[in-house]
Amino acid sequence: MITATLGPKGTFSHEAALKFNPKAKIIFTETIREIFELVGKKKADFGIVPVENSIAGSIGQTLDYLNKFNVKIHAEEVLQINHNLAGFGPISDIKTLYVHPQTKEQCSEFIIRNFRNAEIVQTSSNSKSAELVSNAKHKSKGAIIPLMSSKIYGLKIIKTNVQDNKFNFTRFFILGKADSKKAKNPKTGILVRPSNDMPGLLYGLLGEFAKRKINLTKIESRPAKGKLGDYVFYIDFAGHRKEKRIRGLLDAIAKNFHVKVFGSYQRKY
Amino acid sequence: MITATLGPKGTFSHEAALKFNPKAKIIFTETIREIFELVGKKKADFGIVPVENSIAGSIGQTLDYLNKFNVKIHAEEVLQINHNLAGFGPISDIKTLYVHPQTKEQCSEFIIRNFRNAEIVQTSSNSKSAELVSNAKHKSKGAIIPLMSSKIYGLKIIKTNVQDNKFNFTRFFILGKADSKKAKNPKTGILVRPSNDMPGLLYGLLGEFAKRKINLTKIESRPAKGKLGDYVFYIDFAGHRKEKRIRGLLDAIAKNFHVKVFGSYQRKY
Repeated sequence: MITATLGPKGTFSHEAALKFNPKAKIIFTETIREIFELVGKKKADFGIVPVENSIAGSIGQTLDYLNKFNVKIHAEEVLQINHNLAGFGPISDIKTLYVHPQTKEQCSEFIIRNFRNAEIVQTSSNSKSAELVSNAKHKSKGAIIPLMSSKIYGLKIIKTNVQDNKFNFTRFFILGKADSKKAKNPKTGILVRPSNDMPGLLYGLLGEFAKRKINLTKIESRPAKGKLGDYVFYIDFAGHRKEKRIRGLLDAIAKNFHVKVFGSYQRKY
Repeated sequence: MITATLGPKGTFSHEAALKFNPKAKIIFTETIREIFELVGKKKADFGIVPVENSIAGSIGQTLDYLNKFNVKIHAEEVLQINHNLAGFGPISDIKTLYVHPQTKEQCSEFIIRNFRNAEIVQTSSNSKSAELVSNAKHKSKGAIIPLMSSKIYGLKIIKTNVQDNKFNFTRFFILGKADSKKAKNPKTGILVRPSNDMPGLLYGLLGEFAKRKINLTKIESRPAKGKLGDYVFYIDFAGHRKEKRIRGLLDAIAKNFHVKVFGSYQRKY
């Protein structure tokens, strides 16, 4: 089995791919788009893409490509994101800290507290930060990286969990050519495009959920391509598309909206 | 007047700051958090923060810091995001292309079409890409950067608008200690925290908007800190918090939800 995920080795996407299937052959890509292409063209059986991070927010590209490409949501994975200070020596010896800008933003309090007088070098990825310290092999250099990067590059963990907000998780979709026909505790993902203005329409849409007591787990408006102020809605809700009440819901929505069903899958959180 | 924005010079945030007030003294920060701190402590009069990009999605940090810090939304700005190929020579001479990972994702089709055989070097910012080409001063090096970076670093624009999706805009909030007391075509931003499960509550919440014919321009669920599956809603809608019908709306919502009003401001798109 072949899975595609964002590289390089040691990314959180790599970790999510291993969590989904530790034995699969992994193709590492440079962009999210390539993952959709590989699954769409059946060059990979599954593709692992980030959907949302509890701090950074939703990944719009993933939502937009779901709409654009002919792939389904087969499953989801949720990873707790922990950043670690890694290197060769104690924290007080580190004079140069390598850190990716997003990681830096997530660890800003820790960096301000401990590295006021150090040189902070921004890198293009967490793996790059690890590689630079690994190559230097000196206790004056440190990096803030995922656990997996520290293992791949042979760095010692000096301090774990250095992010400001300990509540930091990323949700991934496992893309495939089919969704999960059966799933325990299922969820379904859809896109809804209203035909005109929002207030009454969105209210009517949610009424279809409310009267069937179907629980929404995510709703997000996204700008519809081509015009500012026009929106589509990405909605996740509890239930499988094959259940009778969900079929009733989808039929009712389809009368007034354009709907695309991305698939049903097992809920993981 | 002092404004704070994300640096370094030449970022889209810098451009948004100049659009808001071309004469202000600008403080460049390294993180979004610092901007909230500077405005909260009155060390800057205004702070410019990105809220959402039409391709990359919402910036969760900005939404979360709005909830955490004591600042208001004073105004919004919207910038069209254009990426450009810049350097010293024709496109066919470029053997090394410097590009920030997010920019690379947004220009993936152009890069695949034109740089199959070139070395792609990922950088930590668009300004860094420009700086590297500027220092090399050689036609074999190119960068994909905003127009403003090319001006600051003295690079020639070789091809404009090289992003895959021409519909690419970023929305910024101008933060201040007060919102706009008067605004033409006003919008208001709020956060709503339901006290328990979503289906009926969100429906009831939207009913308050629908029955007053108040138009929503954005709705987004965000994980409430501390528990997976618990959500808060960020909502933008048409109208000023001082209007009678908006006061009625906010009073009605406050009966069943925790509400925080971030302020009213002039709609820019």
